[in-house]
Parts: sequence; C-alpha cells; structure tokens
Amino acid sequence: MSITPHANGRQVSDPVAEQVGWSDVDVRAVDTVRTLAADAVQKTGNGHPGTAISLAPAAYLLYQKVMRHDPADPHWLGRDRFVLSAGHSSLTQYIQLYYAGLLELGDIEALRTWGSKTPGHPEVHHTAGVDLTTGPLGSGVATAVGMAMAQRRQRGLFDPEAAPGESIFDHDVYCIAGDGCMMEGVASEASSLAATQRLGNLTLIYDQNQISIEDDTDVSFSEDVAARYEAYGWDVRVVEWRTKHGVRDEDYVEDVDALHAAIEEGRKVLDKPTFIVLRTVIAWPAPTKQGTGKSHGSALGDDEIKAMKSLLGFDPDQTFDVSDEVLAHVRKVRDRGAELRKGWDQRYEAWRSSHAEAAALLDRVRAHEVPEGYAEAFPTFEPDDKGLATRAASGKVLGALADVLPELWGGSADLAESNNTTMGGQPSFVPEDRQTSEWQGGPYGRTLHFGVRENAMGMIVNGIALEGLTRPYGGTFLVFSDYMRPAVRLAAIQEADSIFVWTHDSIGLGEDGPTHQPIEQLASLRAIPGLDVVRPADANETAHVWQTILTRHGNPTGIALSRQALPILDPSSTSVEQVAKGAYVLVEGSKPTPDVIVMATGSEVSVAIAGAEQLEAQGVATRVVSMPCQEWFAQQDESYREQVLPKAVKARVSIEAGSTMGWRDYVGDAGRVIGIDHFGASADAKTLFTEFGFTPEAVVDAAKASIAESGDPTPGDTAPGYASKDPGFESSAPAERQEGK
Amino acid sequence: MSITPHANGRQVSDPVAEQVGWSDVDVRAVDTVRTLAADAVQKTGNGHPGTAISLAPAAYLLYQKVMRHDPADPHWLGRDRFVLSAGHSSLTQYIQLYYAGLLELGDIEALRTWGSKTPGHPEVHHTAGVDLTTGPLGSGVATAVGMAMAQRRQRGLFDPEAAPGESIFDHDVYCIAGDGCMMEGVASEASSLAATQRLGNLTLIYDQNQISIEDDTDVSFSEDVAARYEAYGWDVRVVEWRTKHGVRDEDYVEDVDALHAAIEEGRKVLDKPTFIVLRTVIAWPAPTKQGTGKSHGSALGDDEIKAMKSLLGFDPDQTFDVSDEVLAHVRKVRDRGAELRKGWDQRYEAWRSSHAEAAALLDRVRAHEVPEGYAEAFPTFEPDDKGLATRAASGKVLGALADVLPELWGGSADLAESNNTTMGGQPSFVPEDRQTSEWQGGPYGRTLHFGVRENAMGMIVNGIALEGLTRPYGGTFLVFSDYMRPAVRLAAIQEADSIFVWTHDSIGLGEDGPTHQPIEQLASLRAIPGLDVVRPADANETAHVWQTILTRHGNPTGIALSRQALPILDPSSTSVEQVAKGAYVLVEGSKPTPDVIVMATGSEVSVAIAGAEQLEAQGVATRVVSMPCQEWFAQQDESYREQVLPKAVKARVSIEAGSTMGWRDYVGDAGRVIGIDHFGASADAKTLFTEFGFTPEAVVDAAKASIAESGDPTPGDTAPGYASKDPGFESSAPAERQEGK
Repeated sequence: MSITPHANGRQVSDPVAEQVGWSDVDVRAVDTVRTLAADAVQKTGNGHPGTAISLAPAAYLLYQKVMRHDPADPHWLGRDRFVLSAGHSSLTQYIQLYYAGLLELGDIEALRTWGSKTPGHPEVHHTAGVDLTTGPLGSGVATAVGMAMAQRRQRGLFDPEAAPGESIFDHDVYCIAGDGCMMEGVASEASSLAATQRLGNLTLIYDQNQISIEDDTDVSFSEDVAARYEAYGWDVRVVEWRTKHGVRDEDYVEDVDALHAAIEEGRKVLDKPTFIVLRTVIAWPAPTKQGTGKSHGSALGDDEIKAMKSLLGFDPDQTFDVSDEVLAHVRKVRDRGAELRKGWDQRYEAWRSSHAEAAALLDRVRAHEVPEGYAEAFPTFEPDDKGLATRAASGKVLGALADVLPELWGGSADLAESNNTTMGGQPSFVPEDRQTSEWQGGPYGRTLHFGVRENAMGMIVNGIALEGLTRPYGGTFLVFSDYMRPAVRLAAIQEADSIFVWTHDSIGLGEDGPTHQPIEQLASLRAIPGLDVVRPADANETAHVWQTILTRHGNPTGIALSRQALPILDPSSTSVEQVAKGAYVLVEGSKPTPDVIVMATGSEVSVAIAGAEQLEAQGVATRVVSMPCQEWFAQQDESYREQVLPKAVKARVSIEAGSTMGWRDYVGDAGRVIGIDHFGASADAKTLFTEFGFTPEAVVDAAKASIAESGDPTPGDTAPGYASKDPGFESSAPAERQEGK
Repeated sequence: MSITPHANGRQVSDPVAEQVGWSDVDVRAVDTVRTLAADAVQKTGNGHPGTAISLAPAAYLLYQKVMRHDPADPHWLGRDRFVLSAGHSSLTQYIQLYYAGLLELGDIEALRTWGSKTPGHPEVHHTAGVDLTTGPLGSGVATAVGMAMAQRRQRGLFDPEAAPGESIFDHDVYCIAGDGCMMEGVASEASSLAATQRLGNLTLIYDQNQISIEDDTDVSFSEDVAARYEAYGWDVRVVEWRTKHGVRDEDYVEDVDALHAAIEEGRKVLDKPTFIVLRTVIAWPAPTKQGTGKSHGSALGDDEIKAMKSLLGFDPDQTFDVSDEVLAHVRKVRDRGAELRKGWDQRYEAWRSSHAEAAALLDRVRAHEVPEGYAEAFPTFEPDDKGLATRAASGKVLGALADVLPELWGGSADLAESNNTTMGGQPSFVPEDRQTSEWQGGPYGRTLHFGVRENAMGMIVNGIALEGLTRPYGGTFLVFSDYMRPAVRLAAIQEADSIFVWTHDSIGLGEDGPTHQPIEQLASLRAIPGLDVVRPADANETAHVWQTILTRHGNPTGIALSRQALPILDPSSTSVEQVAKGAYVLVEGSKPTPDVIVMATGSEVSVAIAGAEQLEAQGVATRVVSMPCQEWFAQQDESYREQVLPKAVKARVSIEAGSTMGWRDYVGDAGRVIGIDHFGASADAKTLFTEFGFTPEAVVDAAKASIAESGDPTPGDTAPGYASKDPGFESSAPAERQEGK
C-alpha cells in the first residue's frame, strides 16, 4: 500500500499536526471530566457515567489536540465533524463543549432536565457544537459515513482541481462508537460501503469496553471486530489500554500517545477509512464499579464517586469542582480554533476570488435557494394512450434537473433501474480505479450505489443533508421503508432535508406479492412527526412534487411512486401551486356544492375520476380532490381547507391502496374509506386492483352509501357490503376500518 | 479444533450420508430445472430466472441428496429446514418441490399468478413444503438462525439426555442466501450471534454470483465476505465453480462433489455454524445473459431461452419439457423420504414410551394448549402507594410462568434489566464453555441474549415460533420497534406466534429524550395487518394480557409496557375476560347512559380515571373505557362493541401518550383526541406529562369541548385550546390531529 502524507486541508505547520503534548494540566483536565461526568449523573439521578469517565482522555484528545474546530463559530464550513455514535454517553461530548466554551458549568449540572442544553442524548440544532443527533446505536456510525461521502462530493462540486489537503472543503469526520454500535446492522451496512468508497477522511474510534446493559458483551458478541473491519477493507489499528478482557487498575495503561499516533497514522492512509479499536475498561478508574455493567447506565452512587475523587486527588466532598487553572487551560482551545480559522479564512477568500461561479453556487445552496430558470427546467407531460408510471416521470424530472441543480445527487439501495433514481448520464460516485491505493482527489460522481442496505442509505442521506451543501436522495421500494425507518425518524428529528424516493408504492406492483407490497407503510410514515409523505397522482403531479420539495428546507420528504403506468392528467388541471397546498380540487362536480367529495392519492386518483364520471352520469354531483400530501394540506389556512373540503359536505369517500388508518380524519363519521387492511397477493396489478376493490364501481357504491348515511341524523352503522378488517385476502370488498362504535 | 462425527439425527447407514452419486439422469434433471425456470418467468413475463438457473445443482443436491425431508409429510417434526433467503429466486425452491411431488407442473406454469401455489416469493402456510416466507433480503438468514436456536432448545426441552445425533429432535437448518442478503444488516447481526451460539446445526450457502439489480456488486460491495464470516467465528468453506469474477463458460466448473463435500465436512464441525461461499455465474449456462444483471430480475427472452435449451440438448421449441425418465427419477425422493421417515418413526415411538412426561408436553404444545393450573399461576397485584411499572409487572408474570410453561422462553436486545424479560433464575442459552470446541448436546438455557440487534432478534423470534414447539418472546424499547419492523411485518405475514415485549412505551420514559421516546410507534404498529398491539393499564391488566396472549395462536403480539410506575387498579375492576375483549368499561359513569366516554390505554388510563373523577364532581356522568387492544376489540361482535361504546354517546375523548392517528375512528366527529404528534424532550416523566398535556385537567377540558360539540348539529371546528399539529415541543396543549375540514 502506498502511504502518502495526508494533509486534507491541514498545513503541516498547523499546531495540531505536531506530536501531542500532554501536560500535567491536561491530565488534571481529563480527570476533571471524570468527576464532572460522575457528578452530573448523580445529580440527575440517572444517565450513563461509565463511558464518559473512561473515554475522557480520548474525547479530550480529539477536541483539544486533533480536530479542526473553531468554538467561536460552531457552524464553520471547514470544521471537522464529530459524531458520538455512542450517544448515551452524551457527557463525553457535553463536557468537551463546556471546555470549548460552548456550554457552561450550569449546563452540565442541568443534564437531562427540562429545557436544558444537555438532553439525555446529543441533539443537533439544540446544542451548539453538536453536529448530529445520536442515541439509537449504530446510527452515528452510518451517518458519519454519509458525512464523509458528502465531504468528498462537496470538494468535487466546489473545488475539484485542488490537490488533496489544499481545499477549504477538505475536512475529516471523527466518530466514537461503542460495543452496541458494533452490533447494530446499520453500522455493518455503512462500514462495508465506507470501504468500497475508500473514505480516507473518516476515523472511527471503537471504544471496546465489552460492557453493555446486560453486562459482559461475551453473552452475545464473541466476534473479532477488528478482523471484521479488515474484511470490509478498512485501515485497522488496535490501541490496547488494557491487554485482556476484565483487566483492572494494575494492568491499565491509558496511553494517549498511542491513540494519537493511531489517529495520525490512520489519517495518512488516504484510500481507506480508519478503524481504531481502543480497548478500555468502562468507568476506569472508579474503584469498584469499573469494568462492570453497573457503571454503564446508572448513577455510580455517592460512595463510589467520593472514592474515585480521592483516588484522583480531588476533594471528595466537592461536586462540579473545576479549578481555575484547568478551565483557563482548556479554554485555550478557543485560541487554537481562532488560529486554525485565520489560515482557513485567508484560503477561503482566495478561493472565492478565483472561483466566482463556484462561490455563487456556494452562496445559493447555503441560502437554500434555487437558481434562475429553475421552474422552467421541469418537464410537462401530455396525456397519451400508454400513460406513465410516476416512478418513470420522477426519473425524467431528475434527468432534467441534472444541469440545473448541481447540488442534487443520489441513488438507490440496489434498485436504481426500478426506482428510476439515476440522473441520466451522471457518473458514479464509486472510486474509479478500485484497485489502486493512491487517492487523487476524487471521484466526484453523482450517482450513488448504496447496495441492498436501506437503513444505511437513509442514515447516509441524512449525513449528506446535514453536511448541508448538497441535496441528497435515496431510493428503494416503499415496502422497504420499513428497513430504513430508524433513519427516516432521525431525519425528521434532525429536520434534515433528506429526500426518500419510494417506488412500487402499493399492491399495484403486482407479482412480487405480499412481502413486497406496501399496505401499512403510507399510514405509518405519515405518523412520523415532521416527515412529509407525498404521493403524486400522475406524471405532472410528480414534476410538481419535485419542484415543491426542492424549494423547501427544514424537514425530510418521502415520495411514493407507482411501478405501474398511470393515466396522465391534462396538465392544465393541476399546477405546482395546487400540489404544494397538499390537496386541491382536481375535478369540480356539476354543482358548486357537490353531493359527495371523493378524495384520493397517487394511483387511485384516476380510479376516483372514473368513479366520479359514473356518479355524474347518474346525476350525483361529485368533486374529486387529489391529496398528494396530508402534511402540506394541514399547513394551509382554515379558509383554504374549507374551500377544498367544505364542512357542509358530509358525504365523502377516500380511496387509497393502503391502510385505512388516518382517513377517518378526512371523511368524518358519514364517510367511507376505501383501503386495504390486509396483506396483498402475488398477481398482476390489474387483477389485484379488481380483487381488492379499487375500482370505479367501488367508488360509486361507497359514495352512495355515504350520501345515504350523511342524510341520516344518526350516523353509525357501516353500509352493507363493507367488511370489517379482514385478515384474509379472499375478500373482494374493500376492507373498512372498524369504527368501534 | 476437535472435529467429531456429526450425525445429528442421522444414522451412518442413512442413504444420504453416503458419497453423493450424480448420474446422467441427475444431470438431465438439473438441466431440466434450468429450462423450467426460464420458461416459467418467460410465460409470466416477469420474475427472477438467473439464480434459479445457475443454482439448480445446489438446490437439487440439497433436496435430492442431502436434506432429511419426507414429501409425504411436509410438516414432519424431524425434517431439516430449508430457508431460501434469496426469496426472489422462488423457482429454486418451487421446482424442487415439484420434483418432490408437492407441486405439479401446472403450478410452475402458473408462477406469480392470482391464486397459484407459486407466488412471487415463497410463502409459508400457502405452499406445502415452504417453511418460511422470504423475499426481503437477509431476513431468511436471520430467521434460519432462529430456527437453529429453536432446534437446540427443543431437544433440550424434550430429549436433553440424548447423545448428539441420537435425538428425534435433532435436525439441521439449510439456508441459501445471495449477495443482497450478505449486504443487509439483519443478516450481519444474526450471523454474529449464530457464532456466539455455536450453531453447528446451521449451514448457510452463500451464492456469490456478484450480480444484483444494479449489475456488478463491485459498485457497492467490495468486502471479503468469507473473511467477515471467519471474524464472526463461523466454519468457512469456499467452493469455486468459477475462480475469478466475470468468468464465462470456458472456465466454469460446476463441481457438485466439491459442494457436497463442503456441506458434509461443515456438518462435522459441531461447535460452529458453516458458511459455504459458492462462487457461481448467474444464469449459467444461458449463452449471452449469464453473468449479467439482465438475467437477474427479467425474463430472458425467447431467443436466449432457445439458445440455452439447444446448448443443453433440449428441443428449443418445447416449453415446460420434463421427460418421463427425469420425472420418475426425481420423484424417487419420496421413497428416500419414506425410508428416512421409517427409521425416525421407530425412534419416535421408542422416545414416547420412555419419555411419557415429555411426550405429554409435546402433545400439549403441538395442540397449542395451556396446562392445568395455568390460570392460577398468574399473580394478582394489590393496590399500594408506590404503584408498579407495567414492565415490572410483566417481569413478575414471566417469573411466575417459568415452571408452568416450560415452552416459554425469551430475552432482550441487550435491555434485559430494563425490559424485565428475564424469568427469574432461568439459565442462559449461551454455550456454557465458550472456549471449548466440543459440543456436548447443549446448553439448553431459557434466557436469550440477542445483543443490540433488534431486527435480528425479531427474525430469530419468528424462526423459533415457526419451528413450532416453543413459545418465544423478545424485548426492546418501544421506540426501537422501528429497528425490528421488517421482522414484525414478517411475523404478521407468516401468522407466527411471536411475542414482542416493548417497554418504555411513551414520553413517560423521561430523561433519555426524543430519540428514545416513542410517539408514532403505537399507531404505526397498529397499522400492520395481523399484529395485535396491547397496552395494559396497570399490573393486573398486564397479567391478564399475558394470560390472554399465551392462549392465542396464529398471529404475533406486541406488548407495550411502561417504564414508570403506574397506580395499581383494584383487581376486582378488571378481569382476564374483559381484557381479552380488547376494551371494556373500567369505571361506569353516574348515569346508565353517560354524558361522555373517556377511553384510554396504558399509563393514560389512570389519568382518564382522575379526569373522570373531576368531571363527576362537576356533575358530568363519565364512563372510563380501558382499551388495551384495538385489534381484540374489533374482533368482538357488534352488540358488545355497542355496549362499551354506545352510538348514542357522541361526546367522547381518547387519551394516549402517542400519535393521535387512528383515534378518530373511535371518538367520531364530535370527539376529542388527546395525543402527541411531535417529538418528545429530555426531562423527567412527570414534567413531560404536564408540559405535553396528559393531565386530568386536559381530560376535563376535552370532555367539555366534546359535549359542547356533540350537542351542536353542525360539528366541525375544533375547540379553543387545541392546537393543530405542531412540530415544536413548547406547546403545553395536547396536539390534536388536524381534521382537514
């Protein structure tokens, strides 16, 4: 292997590139971390002290000596990213942020209390200096991989010709993970991909203390993790502070220089991510609880804390005891940050003057703006006999956007052809020559290949979105949104601009059968706070949906798209303004106040229209409402909502080829919900739609039943022909959710 | 390592233990598989022919020469299990089942059509001979691990003293997986645990063809999979039918003896699961599409199929061409099965006579019955000042059942102490001496340690449930049901008796904050067809819930339990019969027809009671309905449901510390839903309940608003004080789902 100096944005004259100095004050500062961690958990009464105590030197090393960061500007573009995948050990990060002046001692004392800046797990947008919300184990590792990928794409987008280490967009990603992270499949998925992607800018420190909540991890975790990471293709280094499992004080050597050397040597390996196994004893040097599960997730207790403080030469009766000397010393990290920043700022200005176009692009993406000519870039689809699957329309939209939005990129979890996620002709992000160990500043392709790894894909998309300079999307089948649900939830919690492309969005996918046919997915995704779930009705709505999403910022979106071809509606019947409102009158009934409103999403909109035509032919004035996004509709003002769904019209039908759950909110007591509350079956889409009752005739029957009921002042019984929730799939009637009354 | 002969239920005189014989008719039969696979996909127009073609010899070897199975009785207790983790290649299994006489040629021709026995992916309970529903990649691998664990526990339960290989309960699990399975995290999780558990009865054949939907897997999957499995601790063997990637005809050696030898040698390693890397060329010997993504998921096309048939010496113009000679030959596998069965039946009878107690237990569990004294085993909890968390009550129930239900076992994904999933004093299932390579027929402990691997846990629990002789449960936090959602869905699709214990079931978990606080989980789990979601209100309801679940059979259940202590209700106010009905009148109002009904689940039931007391004090007759399980309630007849929730009472309030989604079905247009549609926060539970509006006062306000509205003939506007869906968490008012009208 060829190892070349790895500056990656850091000049050799940078202070951090020198050998680590570790003075007596550093030792005292690290020991102070341990006492603070113990005190904070003790004060709150619950939390996770053990890892924060034993990992104090590692975190201190990163924040004080290794990482590029400027505490005066926690959003600095050039900063290294820190990811605490072992998020329960939030004190590991909070105390370093306190040392950096981003938190104060009172914040540490307020750990895990209402309104504090120090919640149980680190939360981005909540605590300055926290770049990622972590807690669900493994998620941090996977998201860190996404951040490292984002860094490479960003440098390719803004500064591709710079030599390695000479771009202002070069930065590194550091991640601390624990045993639990190593057990979670999502970390495995992402770690495998990280090696394929040769992410030399990623350093993962695995705190191997071999203690988790069920105590010794031996009961479930006997693998050789270092060998596994070698099998993935990482640069693997082992730092043994203890040489054997279960070791206690006498054999423990907290060798910070060894850890520092591993980090710095790992950074020199440009074509592989670095995996450092750091063998620690949890809660060391707590005298009786070190190395045990008791120190993992509970307060240590007064006696243990006092004994530890005595051992470390602290006054056992003092709590939250930080000497002026220590504080003055650690806060010097702000000067270090300022110095790092000064050099970077000069290079940034130089880059701006020599890269006017790239600088304009940077300014635009940071402002979350779209470029001139954006709206004109979207295709319009004319009706024809064949129709078009919305997934295919989505693919055409992405292709049309390739030149307009250079910040847009993405791919699929091994379903690119099915998801239509490849922007035509755009190169792959995979390293070009996978056999060469020399990394030459690329590649910068826009097409991502995630492999069959949906959850890692979601986390990686989040990591890219949170790096903030590019706009990522990731695709799979809607049913496999289940696999990536942890990532989708974290996208929502973090208000990340992640876009998830979920095709094959109903039983309409056909022959692949029940394991592949989403039923409950739309409802269960809508239940996630902050996630917009969008299901366009045709090719034109699909274009409008993309046009809308890409102008929005601050929360994730999932787009549900059909596998099967759908009729293309007259382009004049819809507009981006209407779609952006979440629901709109697509077809007006023959009376201003219709006899019945039929609302639908996605592939069922054309079924609703066909049903409405039959109803109108029978003299029933029928309004058809297309409702591509419930969340957007809920954000409209009352008068718009009343305009689309007037309260006076109580006869209502909804039709969606998915769970009925949630639709009662829209149809009311007198309404009828056409949905499917049982698993699908393997057959062609047309047969399934007929067999499971997604037909114009079902719309007609439901509309009549609702009209009959809405005339009845005592609503209640369901109309004949509507079965209750039925687990079998022989039923040819649409299942209706039991009302329970 | 010590390698000893591994008979595992098979006598050396068994025909299958001899060296594999591979006659010309076998070769012809295998080639016939290839033509059938190509024809079936071509006829349907879609499907996955490639792997079924190239893997034909491996599947044929297993079904015809290796596995113990009796086609005359596909449910034979002593059969080896076959898991097609690469479920898209369903023809791999279907054609072998046709050869075994469990399907006929017409079934192969009817592939992927409505009502056929040959759906797109294999489905248990649908096609005789299919033991597992697969399709979502990786799930088969993880579930196979569960089956192998079940086998060991079953032998320990029914026949612990038998020497290895001499018990009728000994059988092996064979699994075929593809590249996609190897990428999925769930397979990684389970494979790591399989090595810790030393599952010598598991053989995983990895069909490494390095082609997936995005063509060459190199774009996302460059790791050394064999080395990874060695790192886990598996017995790893490589069978190279091709020696290099991208090899074509001339270098391909389909060496069946080598595969057979790897399987048989692997079976001799008793203390490790066996991983066989089988390097194949997808769709070999199709002349132009072999080794390409084009053969993976699409019909090959007439020309390609004809060319392949010519190459193989078949008439290119014939389809579904099976010679009488081939059919007669392959159907002899039924005689082989009968012979295997004969020996087993004798040993089974001998076992019954010498193991009367175990035989009675076997009969009971196979009949899905509970023992005498079952109901009496459950504890009753008396009210006290401290109350009890329902998770703690659940732990006490499990402890009480340890002796009564020996078939019950389970554990947690590294949260045993938090989930209270350990039956007091029950030994671990972990091999006792993890350093010894000799496997001596055990261990048989009942406490499972899954590690931090929720999805694998779910799949493993499913595998245990589907083996059928024991009753498994697995626990984690409710919020992490997200991680195991793929497994939960497969449990429901497969109607498996899996039990999921989900504790920390609301914001009431407190300080761990939003990443750990479930919001949308209850609603989104209820949306899964066939899953019963149960949330008991107190310790006694918890006992009743367990008592109910364990008498039920045919679908999975999830139990949501509180972290925080809850008041214990008067035991006489509830009963197992009432709880089993899903909802019941817990507190009757002061009038026979109450002014308002307040319904609640879990920890909010006591809030509802407190609210009702305030309402009654103000003269409002208030009924409190405890609704532990919506699914059970929906199964009751109309008259019972009317009795609990009379249509005439339109003033209704629901309160549940989770998403409001779905509750409109129960409260109707005039009702009020108290829930939370935004993420939580890090603070103590009491603060959160107050800040987020889960208080008796909120119940009172909501009840009054609903009474006011239900008297109004024009329902519509929400009452003042009820905010619309609000992403922030400052709101002190309960969020109410926007009605959209």
